[in-house]
Amino acid sequence: MKFVLAPDSFKESMTAKNAALAMEKGIKKVFPNAECVIVPMADGGEGTVESLVSLSNGEVIKAEVIGPLGKTVTAEYGLLDGGQTAVIEMASASGLGLIKLEERNPLLTTTYGTGQLIKHALDKGVSRFLIGIGGSATNDGGMGMLQALGVSFKDQGGKELPFGGGALDQLHSIDISGLDERLKTAKIDVACDVTNPLIGDNGASAIFGPQKGANSEMVKLLDQNLAYFAQVIKTQLQLDIAYIEGAGAAGGLGAGLLAFLNARLKKGIELVIEYTGLEEKIIGANYVFTGEGSIDGQTLFGKTPYGVAGVAKKHSVPVIAFAGRIGNGVEVLYNNGFNAIIGILKEVTPLEEALKSGQENLAFAAENICRVLKG
Amino acid sequence: MKFVLAPDSFKESMTAKNAALAMEKGIKKVFPNAECVIVPMADGGEGTVESLVSLSNGEVIKAEVIGPLGKTVTAEYGLLDGGQTAVIEMASASGLGLIKLEERNPLLTTTYGTGQLIKHALDKGVSRFLIGIGGSATNDGGMGMLQALGVSFKDQGGKELPFGGGALDQLHSIDISGLDERLKTAKIDVACDVTNPLIGDNGASAIFGPQKGANSEMVKLLDQNLAYFAQVIKTQLQLDIAYIEGAGAAGGLGAGLLAFLNARLKKGIELVIEYTGLEEKIIGANYVFTGEGSIDGQTLFGKTPYGVAGVAKKHSVPVIAFAGRIGNGVEVLYNNGFNAIIGILKEVTPLEEALKSGQENLAFAAENICRVLKG
Repeated sequence: MKFVLAPDSFKESMTAKNAALAMEKGIKKVFPNAECVIVPMADGGEGTVESLVSLSNGEVIKAEVIGPLGKTVTAEYGLLDGGQTAVIEMASASGLGLIKLEERNPLLTTTYGTGQLIKHALDKGVSRFLIGIGGSATNDGGMGMLQALGVSFKDQGGKELPFGGGALDQLHSIDISGLDERLKTAKIDVACDVTNPLIGDNGASAIFGPQKGANSEMVKLLDQNLAYFAQVIKTQLQLDIAYIEGAGAAGGLGAGLLAFLNARLKKGIELVIEYTGLEEKIIGANYVFTGEGSIDGQTLFGKTPYGVAGVAKKHSVPVIAFAGRIGNGVEVLYNNGFNAIIGILKEVTPLEEALKSGQENLAFAAENICRVLKG
Repeated sequence: MKFVLAPDSFKESMTAKNAALAMEKGIKKVFPNAECVIVPMADGGEGTVESLVSLSNGEVIKAEVIGPLGKTVTAEYGLLDGGQTAVIEMASASGLGLIKLEERNPLLTTTYGTGQLIKHALDKGVSRFLIGIGGSATNDGGMGMLQALGVSFKDQGGKELPFGGGALDQLHSIDISGLDERLKTAKIDVACDVTNPLIGDNGASAIFGPQKGANSEMVKLLDQNLAYFAQVIKTQLQLDIAYIEGAGAAGGLGAGLLAFLNARLKKGIELVIEYTGLEEKIIGANYVFTGEGSIDGQTLFGKTPYGVAGVAKKHSVPVIAFAGRIGNGVEVLYNNGFNAIIGILKEVTPLEEALKSGQENLAFAAENICRVLKG
């Protein structure tokens, strides 16, 4: 009997790996000889580095970089495949979580640190990148990242532009001659679950600016600046990125990655499935167990259990999903590869205790589902 | 595919019948053609009348009787089998729930109303009784019940004794000549889960007196009185009931039932299994679903799901138990006929909301277990 255990993390309760280990513990009580293939998953957002590093016994690399507001921060990324692949969450270097609520200001915040992480990985010999771009504090079109990688953005006086989306209107010339040579052959995959264009009513500034600290005046200014940025790129590089799907992700970092680094933008869960080799592992399995802290109708929109179930369905392997919270609308999941959805709570407790008991509860639920399977 | 649905009530959330209906609803979503045999269960305590009446389309009969402290109360019992069988919970006529906390006084409380219910049923033609004796407010050795049924307990002056365990020391003679004739042929089953003797350190007064309002002085007095009561019975009726197992149940009501009414004392769940015909229904079933509000290691001690699982195990039918709360020590249940124990909570909520969502949650859990079974 072969089980593939491919949960996401149960946020604030357990990492994806610990969730999979809890499932394994429960399974082994009923089927001691079962083969359990542990595949900690993620959806390209928070926890992606952790899951992929723990899956492949990779390494977490720490690096001092320039944070979103110019102060040095210690960011980290994952090194996989003996150093050939890096997994980077941009939020680790340029994320909202690194600055205080009252400091949020997308006119000033930069993606420079994200570029430094890429450079740091290149220096370690990395040639393949998986970059998660959720949780950014920035709206600079990726200029900061590109500056860190050798691209020069100059004003009319020939001076390098300062950081931040507020400076883009001073852009006069772009010089890509200094762009790190190694990026020409590197393969860059960007986990991107939004389809917003760079500019306009559905663009980076209008949709994501406010949560980064922009008021309506700032949103207008930021959008104008990104439009101008796109115009300069179009004129000088013959690339039209203004309305490409996903270009507006992470304050236009998506656009910068597309235009300058030849990146491939894909749904996070699809990339994680690719990088984990989940499909090969599922072939021949009797059951797939997945799960996440919360499962509801929204799980259809790119959440990990949905992605896992899709792969399993393709190979006709039944999927049982576990969750700490089962919300409304889960019926739609039954037609999308989910055989059953199982709550793991054992009793009414405050949330804090439920989160603490996550592993024990998940192990218990997995054990009892195996008891049902055993008959 | 045949399912037997035999849950107890989920206290404060749903009756046994509603729990079974919720299970059925979940099952039918997955197996629309499944045969669902609904057997609302109970353990001889609260809910026994309700479950047995609803199982057999019986009737709930209301009757005005004398309550534990002499005031009239409206009690009820169940009439089954076209009027041949009565199910009586003594607490409905003589229970702690009928009096205020500060009124509790086992020197005064009487089982008279319970006797009236029996008489009421006899008048309706009943010849078989299932009597649940949990939750009593009394410590009168069953004297009140027997008085209502025609037995006379006189003092030295030939005067009928007043109500209550405090009067037993005045007992001089017992006259059973007036005992209702119909009781000679009636079959009386008493659901009794305690094994305490009538008197002594483990007797009715010492163990159950305090929760009925007795302080240590009263406990002593009540125990002496019951000892004297047993002595008079021994002398006059040649029956020694002082140390019979279960004689101490319900303040000695067990003793009165044994000595005067030739009752059979049995574990509540065993009697309910007998009266529901559960075993016949389980034969040939594919699955038994049971459940209760709370399941833990204590479930082994005569709780409904344990009894149901025992019957199913005998016929090798797998049992899946559902619970709102899964407590410690459930591992012991796996060796006692329980195949799996499934929590029904869908998310962290206050208890009140969890109780309100009971039927919905149980239906959801039953549905998803069926989805697991379907594979």
